Formats: sequence, C-alpha cells, structure tokens
Amino acid sequence: MTKKKLAVILSGCGVFDGAEIHESVLTMLAIANNGAEYQIFAPDKNQHHVINHITGEEMKETRNVLIEAARIARGNIKPLTDLDVRDFDAILFPGGFGVAKNLCDFALKGADFSVIPLVENVIKSAYQNGKPIGALCISPVMIPKILGEVEVTIGSDNGTIAAIEKNGGKHKITTHGEIVIDNKYKVVTTPCYMLDATIDQIATGADKLVKAILKLA
Amino acid sequence: MTKKKLAVILSGCGVFDGAEIHESVLTMLAIANNGAEYQIFAPDKNQHHVINHITGEEMKETRNVLIEAARIARGNIKPLTDLDVRDFDAILFPGGFGVAKNLCDFALKGADFSVIPLVENVIKSAYQNGKPIGALCISPVMIPKILGEVEVTIGSDNGTIAAIEKNGGKHKITTHGEIVIDNKYKVVTTPCYMLDATIDQIATGADKLVKAILKLA
Repeated sequence: MTKKKLAVILSGCGVFDGAEIHESVLTMLAIANNGAEYQIFAPDKNQHHVINHITGEEMKETRNVLIEAARIARGNIKPLTDLDVRDFDAILFPGGFGVAKNLCDFALKGADFSVIPLVENVIKSAYQNGKPIGALCISPVMIPKILGEVEVTIGSDNGTIAAIEKNGGKHKITTHGEIVIDNKYKVVTTPCYMLDATIDQIATGADKLVKAILKLA
Repeated sequence: MTKKKLAVILSGCGVFDGAEIHESVLTMLAIANNGAEYQIFAPDKNQHHVINHITGEEMKETRNVLIEAARIARGNIKPLTDLDVRDFDAILFPGGFGVAKNLCDFALKGADFSVIPLVENVIKSAYQNGKPIGALCISPVMIPKILGEVEVTIGSDNGTIAAIEKNGGKHKITTHGEIVIDNKYKVVTTPCYMLDATIDQIATGADKLVKAILKLA
C-alpha cells in the first residue's frame, strides 16, 4: 500500500521567531509513527526578525525562513512555491511565533492581520481540493481568516479566541493533548504550547492530530 | 517519589554545525515519557562555523552555541559552567556535527582530536561520581578519549570506529534503535543518525537509551 504523503509547512527554526521546534519534530515523528511520510516546505523569505532565545531581545541579524527551517528538516526541504497541494494527502502547520510573524502578521497586528499570499493560496487550494489541514498551536488562527466559519482550537487564550471569532471562526476551548475536528472543512487543530505544556503533552497532541488527519485524508 | 533529573548537553541547533535537532528533542521526550525531568546546558562559546543547511556551504556569520541551543530549549537553558554533575542523576549528549566541531574537534582532526576542557571535566566528574553518561550519534567518540577502555557504539562507520579504538575504546557494531551498555563505566550509547535512519528509529534509540540510563542512575 502506498504511504499517505503529508506536506509540513515550517516558518523558521525556534519558537520566538520561527517554527516551534518540538511541535515540528513531534509532528514529523507522529507522521512516521502512523505509517505516513512527509515533505517539508517553507517560504523563501527573510524572517520578520531574529530573537535571542535566552534574553528575548532582538538580534541585529537577518535570517531566511527557508534556510533556517532546513535545520529542522536536516536539509530535506523545498521552497513553498514548489508545493502543489494536489500532490499531497494533507497539509500540516506546526506552530511557533514564526507562524504569527513570517506566515502571517498576527503577532504584530492582532485580529486585523493578513496571511502571506503564498500561504493563503495553500490553505484555499487545500480546501478546494478536499485535502485536510492540520494546524497546531497558534497556526489555527490563520484558517478562519481564509476559510471563514471553521471550528478550531488554540487552547484557551482569550485574545486569540476573540481574533478567531472576529474573523468568522468558531472556537472550542481545549486542554493538553486535545484536538478539535471540523469535518465540513476537514480541519484538525490542537493547542500545544499555546498552553503551558510539557514536551510529552505536545507529542500526544501531535499524534492525535495526525491520526485524525489521516482518517480524513 | 522525586523525579530523576538528567542534564542534557547541547552543541548548538542544527545537524551540520550544532546539535542534531531530532536527537535533542526526542531525548527530551524520552526523559519525560519515562517519568524523569531534564535541565539543558550548552557551552557559552562561538560555534566553529555556521552552515547553510540547504547548500551545505559555510555562511559568513558568527553564532553562539548557547544562544542557538536555547532555540531547542525554548529559552530554558544554562551555561555549561553552571553544571555540577553531583546535582544530577545522569548526563546525556545528543549528537550532531556540533559535538564534533564545538564540544570537541573530531570533525576537523580525526582520531587525534581533543575535547574542550569544560566537557572533559563533565565526563570525568560524571564517572568519578558514579553518574551514568548517555551518548547518541557521534557523541560516543568523546567518551573513550576521556575515560579509556569504555565499550560504545556509533553504528558501523569504519573511520569513526578506528578513531574510537585508537583512543583505547571498544566498539560494538549496532543497527537502528540498538544500544550498547558498558556497566563498568555506566555508559550507554546508540547510533541514531550515524546510520541512515528515520525519525521514528531515532525516537526508539533515544527511548531505549534513556530507559537504560535511568536503570543505572
């Protein structure tokens, strides 16, 4: 039997300015553990900024999202412009501030944010082609912005919930390792580090999400 | 019951110039899954160099091992000078070229390499205090260099095996997910990405290694 193939879209390498590393790695592990395979993608653009992950301060450097995400991918990565969603069974977005700074500008603008056209097209195209979308941590905030009345979860953060609802989405409060499935839109979401979680809780959430995605795919 | 506490020593963030990210994250996951806890450490020094993980070419940048490793640690990291091995039940070294470039210079000098004094002291002190040492991927090459006739595995790479034997160590060939336990020295090793492995095989190896370490601790 041919393995199902999932596209994983990263936003850099490191929770404060890129893709959250644990969520990215544990999504990849969940895909392998559930008998599927993945190809990693990232946009070829500069990061919004570079954050010193000890002090939280901005560093006077310029880094590229694709080149940094390649660290998580061990070099096996493609530019997001190469992604044709019809070639994949589902699309996955791990979280991290990189999602809210490099894939969209939610971290900077709040509810009135916009998603970069490349990612907007991927989300629209996935929906139009009936491909499930999995989104972890802060990533779910992008989905109602593009698709409208989708039900998602980002855990229980009031500000983010308000932004989701303002953009036409429905939000369901969840805790560690829980997922929300919107069967109409084929969207599965889980809060991960949007809660004060431990690494094994991230693994649980990622595994449940991937299992649900593979059932919908 | 108090949880056992393991020190995890990282060498940056990214397989080609730092700590291998999957091995680091899956070591942390294995610790949590087996009911223990961890504190992450890294040396506060510049990386040997910065590698573009897509092209493999050197980038004209300077990055600090501790600051980059903080990406994997989500900011919860301490300088290696703060590590007193007596405060921990065991010491773990995930792999990556960062081990062979930033913690020692094996990648540059082969068998006649040296280990940085800070790491040499940690390994000696762990042995003298009866604390188990776990080493993944290329990290095992450092242990016989410091402790002598320890039995370790790095998988099946002939050049690295020759270097281990030249430095007084014993090597046992292993394949995916296997571990080697030296009960006299309390050293546990596993090959990980020293073999052409998949991410789920890394998780298996890390989990077996952590289980063996916790039994020895």
